[in-house]
Amino acid sequence: WGPQKCTALLTCIDLASGAFGLGYEGCSFPCDFVNMKKQNVRTLALIVCTFTYLLVGAAIFDVLESDNERKEREALQEMESMIFKKYNITKEDYAFMELVVLQTVPHRAGQQWKFAGAFYYATTVLTTIGYGHSTPNTVAGKLFTMFYATIGIPLGLVMFQSIGERLNKCSSMIIKQIKKMTKKAQIQATEMNLISVVITLSILIIVAGAAVFSRYEDWSYFDSTYYCFVTLTTIGFGDYVALQNNDALASQPEYVAFSLIFILFGLTVVAASVNLLVLRFVTMNTVDERKDELEALQ
Amino acid sequence: WGPQKCTALLTCIDLASGAFGLGYEGCSFPCDFVNMKKQNVRTLALIVCTFTYLLVGAAIFDVLESDNERKEREALQEMESMIFKKYNITKEDYAFMELVVLQTVPHRAGQQWKFAGAFYYATTVLTTIGYGHSTPNTVAGKLFTMFYATIGIPLGLVMFQSIGERLNKCSSMIIKQIKKMTKKAQIQATEMNLISVVITLSILIIVAGAAVFSRYEDWSYFDSTYYCFVTLTTIGFGDYVALQNNDALASQPEYVAFSLIFILFGLTVVAASVNLLVLRFVTMNTVDERKDELEALQ
Ligand SMILES: [K+]
Ligand SMILES: [K+]
Repeated sequence: WGPQKCTALLTCIDLASGAFGLGYEGCSFPCDFVNMKKQNVRTLALIVCTFTYLLVGAAIFDVLESDNERKEREALQEMESMIFKKYNITKEDYAFMELVVLQTVPHRAGQQWKFAGAFYYATTVLTTIGYGHSTPNTVAGKLFTMFYATIGIPLGLVMFQSIGERLNKCSSMIIKQIKKMTKKAQIQATEMNLISVVITLSILIIVAGAAVFSRYEDWSYFDSTYYCFVTLTTIGFGDYVALQNNDALASQPEYVAFSLIFILFGLTVVAASVNLLVLRFVTMNTVDERKDELEALQ
Repeated sequence: WGPQKCTALLTCIDLASGAFGLGYEGCSFPCDFVNMKKQNVRTLALIVCTFTYLLVGAAIFDVLESDNERKEREALQEMESMIFKKYNITKEDYAFMELVVLQTVPHRAGQQWKFAGAFYYATTVLTTIGYGHSTPNTVAGKLFTMFYATIGIPLGLVMFQSIGERLNKCSSMIIKQIKKMTKKAQIQATEMNLISVVITLSILIIVAGAAVFSRYEDWSYFDSTYYCFVTLTTIGFGDYVALQNNDALASQPEYVAFSLIFILFGLTVVAASVNLLVLRFVTMNTVDERKDELEALQ
C-alpha cells in the first residue's frame, strides 16, 4: 500500500458514489494508512489523472496531426516560392503583404464593431468562448474588455447555471406528470431520467445547429458539428466562426438572431448537464470540509 | 409592485446576503405577491441583468472600436491597392496568396504538433482557453478533439476547483497561524482575509506573468497584461499567443515550461477565487430547492 494505490482507490470510490448517488460516508481506511486527509488525497489524485490525461492526449494529437502538418508545410512552401517566382516580389514586400492580408481578415466579414457585431463580441467575452475573429485594437477597447470580463464572466456563469438548474427542475416536473399519466408505480423522476433528457437535448441542439450552420456558412456537416461542439464547450478556437460571410452581421438579421440564440440556448443546456453531472464533484471538498468541522465540534 | 420590482429586490437581497455571509433565510414577501417561486424569480432576474449587461457592453464596444475599425479598413484598402499597382497581381492570384499566407501563420511558429506543441494544444482544449493558434486539420484530429474535450473539460474543471479549494484551506490555515503568533483575539481566518489573499495572488501572477511574457515575446507590458488576463479568464482570443516566436516550442524548453506552469498555476488561483466568491451563487437554486423539499416533508 502506497499513496498512489490509496489515491486511485479513493477517487474511484468517490467518483462512483457521486455518480450513482450512493450514500457513501467516507471509509478512509487506506488513507489513514498514509496519514493524509481525504480531501488532499482526492485533489492529488485529480492532479495525477489530469496530467496523465494531458500527456496521453498530447501523444495522440502528435500522432494524428504531425504527418499532415509536415505535408502541408511542404505544400505551402512550394506555393510561396511559386508566387515569388511569378511576381518577383521582394522579401520586405512579401512580409508587408502578409501583414496586410492578416489584418484584412476581420474586415472582409463587414463591420465587426457596429452594434450587432459588438453584441456578438460581448457575448463571446461573457461566455468565455472568445473566438478571436475580431479583437479590440485600441487601448481603451482592451482595457474595457478586461473590466467587462471581470464582472461579466461570473455573472454569465451564475446565470447559465441558474437557468440550467431550472431546466432540470422543469424536466423533472414534466417527467413526473408523464409517469403519473401512464400510471407508473414510481412517479418521481430519477437521476437517470434527467441525464437522458439533457443528453438528448444536447444532441438535438448540436444536430439542428450543425444543419443550419452548414447551410448558411457553406461548411460540411462534419465541420459544422465540430464548430457547434467547439462553441458550446466554450473552447472557441475561431478556426470556424459563424456570421463572417456575406456581410451576415449587417444583412442577415434572422441568421444573426439564430446564431446568438444557438449560443445562449446551447450553453443553457450545457449548464444543465454540468449542474446535473459535474457540480457535485466541484463541491465535494467543500462539503467534506464542512462535515469534518461539524465532527470536530461534536 | 410588479414582477420587475420584486425581481430586482430579491436579487439584491440574495447577492448581498451571499456576499456578506449573512444568515438570510428567504423572506419571500414580495414574491408571494406575484405568486412566483423565489428560485424562478432569481433566474429571471439574472437573465434580465445579463442581457442588459450584454446590450450596454455592445454599445460601449461599438463606441470604443468602430471609429478605429473604419480608419484601419481605409488604411488597409490603400495598402492593398498599392501592392496591386506595384506588382500587377491578378485578383485570382491575390486570393490564392491570401490563402497561402493565412495557412502559413501556424507553420511560422515551428512545428505545432510535435510533443511540446501537442501538449500545449491539449492544455488549451482541457482548460477551454482554445487560442486557436493551431487547430486540427485532419478529420481524425477534429474527432479526437471532440472526444478529448468531452472527458477533459469536466476533469479539468473538477481538478482546478479541487486545488482552488485546497489553496483557500491552506491560506486559511496560514492566516490562523499568523494570527495566533501575533496574539490576535479572533484567530479564525475571516472570509475577507481569504478574499484579500486570492486577489493579491491573482494580481501577483498577472504582474509577474506579464513581465516574463513581455520580455520573451516582445510585447508591450500592457499587451502582456492583456494576454495574461485573456488567458486566465479562459477567453483565449488568440490575438496574442505565447510560444509562437523564434521556434520557442522546440528551442526554449524553460520558456515552454514557464508558459504551461503560468497557465496551470494561474487557473488554480482563478479557481480559488471562483470557489470563494462565485460558487455559492451557482449552487443557490439547488440549495433552496432542497430546503423547499425538506419543508414540504415536515
Ligand atoms: K478561444
Ligand atoms: K475560450
